[in-house]
Amino acid sequence: MSQLPKQPAEGPVPTSADVARLAGVSRATVSYVLNNNPTVRISESTRRRVREAASELGYVPHAAARSLRAGHTRTVLMPTGDHPAGPLHHRFLHELESGLRRLDYTVVQHGSLGLDADEAARAWAELRPVAVIAPGGVALTPQGIAVLRRSGAKAVITLGPQPVDGAHALVMDQREVGSCATGHLLQRGRRRIGVVMPEEPGLAPFAEPRLSGARRVAADVGALIEPLPLRYDEESAGALAARWRTLGLDAVFAYNDAYAMLLMRALQDAGIEIPAETAVVGADDLLIGRLLRPRLSSVRMELAASQPLADLVDRLVRHPGGVPERHDLLRARAIPRESS
Amino acid sequence: MSQLPKQPAEGPVPTSADVARLAGVSRATVSYVLNNNPTVRISESTRRRVREAASELGYVPHAAARSLRAGHTRTVLMPTGDHPAGPLHHRFLHELESGLRRLDYTVVQHGSLGLDADEAARAWAELRPVAVIAPGGVALTPQGIAVLRRSGAKAVITLGPQPVDGAHALVMDQREVGSCATGHLLQRGRRRIGVVMPEEPGLAPFAEPRLSGARRVAADVGALIEPLPLRYDEESAGALAARWRTLGLDAVFAYNDAYAMLLMRALQDAGIEIPAETAVVGADDLLIGRLLRPRLSSVRMELAASQPLADLVDRLVRHPGGVPERHDLLRARAIPRESS
Repeated sequence: MSQLPKQPAEGPVPTSADVARLAGVSRATVSYVLNNNPTVRISESTRRRVREAASELGYVPHAAARSLRAGHTRTVLMPTGDHPAGPLHHRFLHELESGLRRLDYTVVQHGSLGLDADEAARAWAELRPVAVIAPGGVALTPQGIAVLRRSGAKAVITLGPQPVDGAHALVMDQREVGSCATGHLLQRGRRRIGVVMPEEPGLAPFAEPRLSGARRVAADVGALIEPLPLRYDEESAGALAARWRTLGLDAVFAYNDAYAMLLMRALQDAGIEIPAETAVVGADDLLIGRLLRPRLSSVRMELAASQPLADLVDRLVRHPGGVPERHDLLRARAIPRESS
Repeated sequence: MSQLPKQPAEGPVPTSADVARLAGVSRATVSYVLNNNPTVRISESTRRRVREAASELGYVPHAAARSLRAGHTRTVLMPTGDHPAGPLHHRFLHELESGLRRLDYTVVQHGSLGLDADEAARAWAELRPVAVIAPGGVALTPQGIAVLRRSGAKAVITLGPQPVDGAHALVMDQREVGSCATGHLLQRGRRRIGVVMPEEPGLAPFAEPRLSGARRVAADVGALIEPLPLRYDEESAGALAARWRTLGLDAVFAYNDAYAMLLMRALQDAGIEIPAETAVVGADDLLIGRLLRPRLSSVRMELAASQPLADLVDRLVRHPGGVPERHDLLRARAIPRESS
């Protein structure tokens, strides 16, 4: 490899015409070779000559120019949410991205912090994605979906706790988490169950369906469900623990393991015995839960495999116009430990 | 707002020519108005007419077409790392993105999972970004930087623990974290200090400089630094705790709060008294550390304000060709609690 300049390379950006000239072929041939167009037969020696010329000049195809020529892009836009993704969700997104890349899509992400829902949809539409996969918590309105469709998006797909009218939905149904946690507590004989509702902005789309899942299974046996607003700080947890005995609860589903750790600490500091007086269950099945004493019961979530989902996105792009499809991705199961 | 169809909107994608026709103006005027071009004077009533026509047709500008006309894009590419960003880093990236959006850049993110460094750079180059801000942990080689420059990137900037030759560097110098944690332990009179080295892939770019920061301050007083490989699981922590007393250490800097919680639990289960026998310090200053008993000492990190950094990116784009600049973003300070 030759010595590289420390200064930015100046001079014009190499074009496919430069590659064609150096390789002694037409621009169309350069385009066919570098975009792996399978419909045109080109000899292996010509392919090699084009690739070597491109490499020598440092040329890479221009995604936007290619998409303008083709009349559509291969860009799949995955807007990012306001909150950092947890490890499970992060891995899922990365695998879905790899799956789409194998199908020759270019996946780009784009934030929407500080934009309202319709501003965000217009900003995404400017990128002319062929598909949009908007994760949970990112606002996507029917108006925004219409803007994206009119700008050429063949498939608008939500990826989150709830479907949005008019879009395909990959649903991570959070009700499963609430009903799973609550079902476990009911099995343990608990009948007065608190459900932690985080007050942090952006978590309501997850917390509300977890609560309704808890209500659903509790109703079957006439158990009480009591929503418990909680901020993720020691003061809020201390205040809740201080009035705990007035609530008369025998169990709590603490939204997730992090909130469970916070609340369990406050309850223990207030002299509440866990699980004898109050059973505690979290969600996410993080390592931290196993490090607590008593060890934290939790709910483990699993997401569907990503390659079939990439294939699904590809099908929705190639056959637009069907009725909105719903696919459920999330499975949940209780992991009983010592705290319940 | 009119009723929206549940079916995807069919028919051709509206163009700026459609908007021009409906508003009774030229395409150039549509472009000036919708791209907020400040160099052309257009009456408020014309602007309003264009905006209303665009809104009626559901037209949004086409970022790629605009950039092809302009000869350059306003796209800033921020490749994503393999690991989920922590809350501090996530907020920083979002704020930087907002700052760049205020300067009329379009920020897109793009993953590189499963690609080697040079494949990733070529994939990024296809998007023809005017600037690339590659976060820590994302491989960026001098070859990759050259590919990006030749495809028209005016500024290639790394954002991470170490600079890369030939690129501007926004450095979050992790040595600060190691020297800060170790300096605190030295002040507490400890002289035989373990430094946890996570074995998880992708963390070495953070762990290695933390270790060298620890070595630097320890050398000043002749203290011992002992690297301690550790996987983020109970088995690995248990094995380390089982041979703890043979190591003869009086303190440990545990990489971060999560690893500190893991190791502290294992040490306590093995009967090691904290801090009497071994002082423990983490990093990140997470809430979980304050929930532990003893409360975990930590290192708090702060990052530079994002708007000046957005302005810096803009300057590097507008004045390419200068020598690579280095800007240090990270400040660290010890937060002493009960564990040290």
